[in-house]
Amino acid sequence: MENMTLAYYAAGAGALALLFALFTLSSILKEDMGTPKMREISEAIHEGAMAFLNRQYKTLIPFALIIFVLLWAAQYFVEGGGSAHMPVGPASAISFLVGAALSAVAGYIGMTSTTKSNARTAEAARSHGLSKALNVSFRAGAVMGLSVAGLGLLGVSVLYIIFGQPTIINSFAFGASAIAFFARIGGGIYTKAADVGADLVGKVEAGIPEDDPRNPAVIADNVGDNVGDTAGMGADLFESYAATTIAAMLIGNTLFGFAGIIFPMLVGAVGIVAAIIGTFCVRTSEDGNPQAALNVGLWVTNILTAIGVFFVAKATFVGEAASVATGIFMAVVAGLIVNVAVGYLTEVYTGTGKASVNRIAEASKSGPATNVIHGLAVGMESTFLPMLTFAGAIYFSFWAVGSAAPADKAEIWAIYGIAMAAMGMLSSAGFVVAMDSFGPVADNAGGIAEMAELPPEVRAKTDKLDAVGNTTAAIAKGFAIGSAALTALALFSAYVEAVTHKFAAVLPGGKFIVNLTEPMVLVGVFIGGSIPFLVGAQTMRAVGEAAYGMVEEVRRQFREIPGLLEGKPGVKADYARCVDIATSSAISKMVAPGMVAVSAPILVGFILGAKALAGFLGGLTVTGVLMALFLSNAGGAWDNAKKWIEQGNLGGKKSDPHKAAVVGDTVGDPCKDTSGPAMNPLIKVAGTISLILGPLLTRL
Amino acid sequence: MENMTLAYYAAGAGALALLFALFTLSSILKEDMGTPKMREISEAIHEGAMAFLNRQYKTLIPFALIIFVLLWAAQYFVEGGGSAHMPVGPASAISFLVGAALSAVAGYIGMTSTTKSNARTAEAARSHGLSKALNVSFRAGAVMGLSVAGLGLLGVSVLYIIFGQPTIINSFAFGASAIAFFARIGGGIYTKAADVGADLVGKVEAGIPEDDPRNPAVIADNVGDNVGDTAGMGADLFESYAATTIAAMLIGNTLFGFAGIIFPMLVGAVGIVAAIIGTFCVRTSEDGNPQAALNVGLWVTNILTAIGVFFVAKATFVGEAASVATGIFMAVVAGLIVNVAVGYLTEVYTGTGKASVNRIAEASKSGPATNVIHGLAVGMESTFLPMLTFAGAIYFSFWAVGSAAPADKAEIWAIYGIAMAAMGMLSSAGFVVAMDSFGPVADNAGGIAEMAELPPEVRAKTDKLDAVGNTTAAIAKGFAIGSAALTALALFSAYVEAVTHKFAAVLPGGKFIVNLTEPMVLVGVFIGGSIPFLVGAQTMRAVGEAAYGMVEEVRRQFREIPGLLEGKPGVKADYARCVDIATSSAISKMVAPGMVAVSAPILVGFILGAKALAGFLGGLTVTGVLMALFLSNAGGAWDNAKKWIEQGNLGGKKSDPHKAAVVGDTVGDPCKDTSGPAMNPLIKVAGTISLILGPLLTRL
Repeated sequence: MENMTLAYYAAGAGALALLFALFTLSSILKEDMGTPKMREISEAIHEGAMAFLNRQYKTLIPFALIIFVLLWAAQYFVEGGGSAHMPVGPASAISFLVGAALSAVAGYIGMTSTTKSNARTAEAARSHGLSKALNVSFRAGAVMGLSVAGLGLLGVSVLYIIFGQPTIINSFAFGASAIAFFARIGGGIYTKAADVGADLVGKVEAGIPEDDPRNPAVIADNVGDNVGDTAGMGADLFESYAATTIAAMLIGNTLFGFAGIIFPMLVGAVGIVAAIIGTFCVRTSEDGNPQAALNVGLWVTNILTAIGVFFVAKATFVGEAASVATGIFMAVVAGLIVNVAVGYLTEVYTGTGKASVNRIAEASKSGPATNVIHGLAVGMESTFLPMLTFAGAIYFSFWAVGSAAPADKAEIWAIYGIAMAAMGMLSSAGFVVAMDSFGPVADNAGGIAEMAELPPEVRAKTDKLDAVGNTTAAIAKGFAIGSAALTALALFSAYVEAVTHKFAAVLPGGKFIVNLTEPMVLVGVFIGGSIPFLVGAQTMRAVGEAAYGMVEEVRRQFREIPGLLEGKPGVKADYARCVDIATSSAISKMVAPGMVAVSAPILVGFILGAKALAGFLGGLTVTGVLMALFLSNAGGAWDNAKKWIEQGNLGGKKSDPHKAAVVGDTVGDPCKDTSGPAMNPLIKVAGTISLILGPLLTRL
Repeated sequence: MENMTLAYYAAGAGALALLFALFTLSSILKEDMGTPKMREISEAIHEGAMAFLNRQYKTLIPFALIIFVLLWAAQYFVEGGGSAHMPVGPASAISFLVGAALSAVAGYIGMTSTTKSNARTAEAARSHGLSKALNVSFRAGAVMGLSVAGLGLLGVSVLYIIFGQPTIINSFAFGASAIAFFARIGGGIYTKAADVGADLVGKVEAGIPEDDPRNPAVIADNVGDNVGDTAGMGADLFESYAATTIAAMLIGNTLFGFAGIIFPMLVGAVGIVAAIIGTFCVRTSEDGNPQAALNVGLWVTNILTAIGVFFVAKATFVGEAASVATGIFMAVVAGLIVNVAVGYLTEVYTGTGKASVNRIAEASKSGPATNVIHGLAVGMESTFLPMLTFAGAIYFSFWAVGSAAPADKAEIWAIYGIAMAAMGMLSSAGFVVAMDSFGPVADNAGGIAEMAELPPEVRAKTDKLDAVGNTTAAIAKGFAIGSAALTALALFSAYVEAVTHKFAAVLPGGKFIVNLTEPMVLVGVFIGGSIPFLVGAQTMRAVGEAAYGMVEEVRRQFREIPGLLEGKPGVKADYARCVDIATSSAISKMVAPGMVAVSAPILVGFILGAKALAGFLGGLTVTGVLMALFLSNAGGAWDNAKKWIEQGNLGGKKSDPHKAAVVGDTVGDPCKDTSGPAMNPLIKVAGTISLILGPLLTRL
């Protein structure tokens, strides 16, 4: 039943999402930008963000071209190179470039959307009110979300239609991975360097308020919100989307032939249609709760996806495979449930007013050290239940497929379950990215309201949206970690398949077994396990150094530009210089961790062999997910403990507990916005590289 | 060649070590204790330490008796229970109790020795000088070291002589484990609660110097040094010693029969003789370097052990096994080398004046947050090279044995290699514990010199010893982590053997394979991987809460005891109450993490089965070792960054960088002395429990 029309449907759904995104963007651009001052600030943020993206992608072009050439040329050095079953050759090289390029395109579209909507959101809040402001800002996020999902699905399906082999289009995921890792780290360094620079000198030393136009780093700070949360998160989920779809296609191909290949694409198509419908459900009244409106949209998306997937599964898996259609549907639903569960747990550990956060706030009474100790404890504790959730999802999804399969296929088919859980989780990516990207727009809108000196009631409205943005950002963070975990497991399974295929002749029983008692596997686990700690250290330190440069520059401007600090009319800070410093330090400091991430699996694979690389992936995935949860949640909890005190508790702003909480928050900044998020692409890039390496390795 | 005389030799070496320890102790007791004031303080510390030990062991007695009864009774519920191959029944129950009891005995002997030597060391420094002071304090440490090694070897060999089956005496290691876990955590909480209480109120709030007799927590603080570093570390290494020896015997029995059983005991015997000779080499002149003297002793111990093991290996492995005698020797040497390498790496990341520590100190210039960020980065970074070292040792030890074996045995025999590397590492435990326990004696001697108002030149001499003690403590910490890692791997291999034996009939090919691609193994890895984070959180928080109680009490005494803070003659602080508070909070807060550590493997094993438990052990070991390195090294680096500033750098004491460094040091305290060290027994206790569970499990 090799009906290629179905692939065209998937491509059509991808194109639909993209068109919908572009149409939405053009409708946003028609909204009013407000006063000339607002327009000016917004344009400065837009230019800064675009400058960063341009410089980042420009830096990555030589790197991408080298890989392109290597992938192309490798066919002459590898046995069977250029054949349909080898992930090297012209088709692979082109797929790689398409993956990298589409990730960049999604970044540009999303970034244009969010940076062009901030003043418009502020103006909507000023002239129309909360409802319209939510409408503008959420639509801006939806442009990003639907671009990510749409371009992901479009890329995979069109490449499949052209090349007809999932092995060949592996490299599409690798291209997406490579960009995602640098986008996450570069964006993370940028946003924190600017944030710390603006806060430390502006708020703490000079005593001027947040988003004050006198602060030279204020534009860079607002740019940072976009390059970190929007571009970084978007690239991260674009990668998960591409990698999961392709891993599922690879595994599905071996197990079910064409049905196994086409089904993941159809799940993606269902998810996109559901997400588009979901975005229409996000509406609030003037005194309504924007959070509730977003929740309605998310539930609509999830439920419609589940219903759609049920029918698609029943229609796709026929003949012998019909027995597992329901099981596959259940695995997809498990992914959707993990999504909700991890978001909920993130809220439990990092939500304002929750026990964990209150405990950190209480500990601030005895000073910064106890604040930090309790924050570390919350971060560590917060790993357990999510890990248990992942373990449950792993077990359930294997069981759902395996138990329904014919006895002789149970063990083999069960592997498809985990890939399906990952697909289920990712199917709602369009909506989740929309929710996440809406945050920086609301945040920027507040900043513009402040800088353009709009009346305080405007700021109150944008603050209400901003608070919701913080919650949706936390949910999206949990989503990104969860999807990275499941994606990594799907990639791991696909890697095992690839190695089995390659070494079938020399493997006992033709099966590649990753036996934890074998020395090479253990060696791989030990090395892989330590990589997240190493990259965590590199990125923490990078933020420290980049922030230092920014602090020096802001101090210099206050010192050398007469009248700036006093707010003398006509005296302007040199915003562009701060933007430039943040950009260049982020770009230069993303290289070292990037090299570790890309070279480690290659070295392990070629020097130590396929078994060591399998152990490496296992160790890396487990500690990577743990560190992601630990760092992100500790950072989130510190942040909200500080905010809770700022709401007037324990003495409020400027009290001693507040000072202690500020220390914790500053420690948490690189944890939650740089090092923690870097873990997701770290574990995925190792997987996508291994998937390409698998068939090229020369020893077990 | 079943020559039981050899087992008597091993028992004889154990007894020799014990006699030597007791003889040394009695010779120390003949030394002069100095002035009545010194005697009084020393006795207060001794009493406090003994009170803690008594209360701790008393709390553990019901727990130990329950396990004793369970182990005894289990024979009636388990198929084959009471047979020589089942780790349940009267013999196992007795072995468990002996293991727990001998751990306690080692604790009592060592603690008596160190707490009775502190005033004597101060007096030696006062009346004789540095050389004699080193002599007294190091001999005190040697009592602990040789008790640990001696009782460990004596216990294993005598139980083996009586019961004749390594499977039965498994429980000896479990008994040692159970005590070790509680001793480490209880001791860790105690020492930090007292330390923080004494420092925060005494040094920071009241502005009185370290070890000032006016400080109500000063005795508790000195007691804490003993219960943390001496008793905790001693129990930890007693556990490693027992568990490694027994795991090696179990694996050896399957592979080589009697030779495989007896050899680990003989390695222990060689190590003990070498350590005794090594202690005689620790001598220094009046203006000499005590560190150099200790290094000479350590090298003598290591080299003599290596030479001895070579001949013993050649004599023990005969016939077909003769081929691997040299390989086994090389694996033992690999263990000795790991020992040296990990100690060196610890020094690189945490040593005063090294780049990592200097970077933290520099970061203190921009405040506490950057200090903490850089400390976290150093901790994370410090995991990579040690993990690479362990990976190298795993690979080399497998290879050394496997490559020399006959082709058909290569894969099976190679497993013995990792157990031998662990044995090699542990063989020098006698000397390493001696070096470590000497630290608290020197530290206490300094405290007594201060409190008894001895002339400053005495304090200068004890400070010189104390500084050396900090280095040896760092080396011992690396040693404890490294040995825990190798011990855990040996236990893992032994567990796999046990499960293979139990389920041989239903296993494909009769082999138990821990396949990372199987769902149950992955589920176990995910759950096991998160346990160190959970226990880390519990212990961090326990320290915070216990310290809070202590802070309140010290503040209360300063407030309510008239004349105390002013130092009015005749006014004395209520030391006993602080000791009591530290004791009771440490005891009560060690229970929750203890329950997690003990119950998690049992629940995973019985609910999810043997494969999940194998995955659990794998995940737990990797993240446990990583967290141990991360937490211990971050804490050590923060501590030394503060000390470096206190030496007059960056403005010295009371400067802003110093205040920032104090925050980092306080954060690091529970990391390096409570949560980090808790990881070692955590990963081992899971292993020893699993070893007993293996044959009892009902599903794969």
